[in-house]
Amino acid sequence: MSQDWLEEFGQYQARINHLLQTQIQGLPDLAPRLKDAMGYALLMGGKRVRPALVYATGSMLKVRQEDLDAAAMALECIHSYSLVHDDLPAMDNDDLRRGKPTCHIAFDEATAILAGDALQTLAFSLLCDYPLSAECQQRRIHLVSAVAKASGYQGMCGGQALDMAATDKPIDIQQLEILHRCKTGALLTASVELACILADAPTEQRLQLQKFAGAIGLAFQVQDDILDVTGDTQTLGKRQGSDQFLNKSTYPALLGLEGAKGLAQQLYQQALQALQPLPYNTDLLRSFAGYIIDRNH
Amino acid sequence: MSQDWLEEFGQYQARINHLLQTQIQGLPDLAPRLKDAMGYALLMGGKRVRPALVYATGSMLKVRQEDLDAAAMALECIHSYSLVHDDLPAMDNDDLRRGKPTCHIAFDEATAILAGDALQTLAFSLLCDYPLSAECQQRRIHLVSAVAKASGYQGMCGGQALDMAATDKPIDIQQLEILHRCKTGALLTASVELACILADAPTEQRLQLQKFAGAIGLAFQVQDDILDVTGDTQTLGKRQGSDQFLNKSTYPALLGLEGAKGLAQQLYQQALQALQPLPYNTDLLRSFAGYIIDRNH
Repeated sequence: MSQDWLEEFGQYQARINHLLQTQIQGLPDLAPRLKDAMGYALLMGGKRVRPALVYATGSMLKVRQEDLDAAAMALECIHSYSLVHDDLPAMDNDDLRRGKPTCHIAFDEATAILAGDALQTLAFSLLCDYPLSAECQQRRIHLVSAVAKASGYQGMCGGQALDMAATDKPIDIQQLEILHRCKTGALLTASVELACILADAPTEQRLQLQKFAGAIGLAFQVQDDILDVTGDTQTLGKRQGSDQFLNKSTYPALLGLEGAKGLAQQLYQQALQALQPLPYNTDLLRSFAGYIIDRNH
Repeated sequence: MSQDWLEEFGQYQARINHLLQTQIQGLPDLAPRLKDAMGYALLMGGKRVRPALVYATGSMLKVRQEDLDAAAMALECIHSYSLVHDDLPAMDNDDLRRGKPTCHIAFDEATAILAGDALQTLAFSLLCDYPLSAECQQRRIHLVSAVAKASGYQGMCGGQALDMAATDKPIDIQQLEILHRCKTGALLTASVELACILADAPTEQRLQLQKFAGAIGLAFQVQDDILDVTGDTQTLGKRQGSDQFLNKSTYPALLGLEGAKGLAQQLYQQALQALQPLPYNTDLLRSFAGYIIDRNH
């Protein structure tokens, strides 16, 4: 991984953390426990992969960084809400996330459900109301539409439902791919899509970037599955072996560990190929793809 | 209640039921159990008060009915999602809603959580993507913004958090009003607000209609509390006496039954006064206000 990328990634993380913190602090004290739970879920760490992808893609497409903030924050709000709900006892029943107690452990189940709900709404509020430059104003509704599509029944929520259905019931590699293309892939694809909307990028470039995002989205999940086998709880910040414990179909289970590693490499190459025809400096996105399959947590 | 209103209300209900059913049927079969649960929650009955208020206000303001459909559907999706989540064991733990098993009883908790999540997202998708006439297109983003504001931390979700905090812990009449202005009032106020946005109504008219909606929103809740004492489970379609069982502060508990009935009347009068200065035929909205405090379920 290049030093340049690590520096950029670090800056993106610092930027989004600061922005999200400001948003939570700016909420009135109407319901303090709910506010605290929203802040806990949103600010308790996390790699900020989706915001980083928004910023890296937008930077390549010459979008002002300020115009990318709403999209980056919205996607992180959606991602955080999904983690809070996924961790609930009725779902994956996880007590550890990013090395800390999950939201329903730190607070209570009712508060965690509401915090997730309110974080989803916050995502849409930010897309509507956060300042944008004049040329991006009219593109707001397309941002909202893309985020709604990626996170709803046909995207993340649907993927999560497929994931629940596949627990204790083995599925094949095609079904596993559909599941992950919805559950994780949709939001990562939305990350590049939002940057394209803000840049008003031509269709053929959008399609290449969607291919890129699709490949790294799946690679991300394959790597997640690999880490669940090879990682340790402390580095991961969540329980190692939890997939196996929940009896979930995973890439290592279906392809073997070496097969899964091979697939991650193959998807990485696909991602790089998708960037080839783009008339931009794609270094950041190439490094991003490398990070996705090299990361250890 | 006038015959005209009952006929109009019936037509609004039939229209929204048909529209919502078409939306659910139009979802792909990606995750059939989630789709079924979304349909169950959205189509299992309900008075359709929010859509009726959108249509009645929009009709008064001369908005094409087709242009009101997206707003009406979106608010009902938000309302339905909130009921599904409120009924969960970690929240109000209700097993009966509209005379039928609640979503998590008919399906399971995980599916109910996801169905609520996906219904929230569907609301925003509809506001972005459902056809609107050319003159209303540019107002879409304002619809999204108003729905997000009404349903999130500063609106419905915040109100629900206040409601949870007030369970087993008596609150005073001012706090109870804040709670209900958020929990129920925000979406009812949004119902008139969305119609105003679509009509591009002048500010002073919006303010009067917001006053109207605020008064009937609170009256709605006062009447709900009264029915929880005086109604029966079969007519209500939900457990009579559940407020008392959950040890919630209610208007009859704080003011006595007669005091609560007096407050409902007072709010009804406030609502009618707010309509007075409007240069329209306000018959439908006057009947709507009458319905809110006369209903028996």
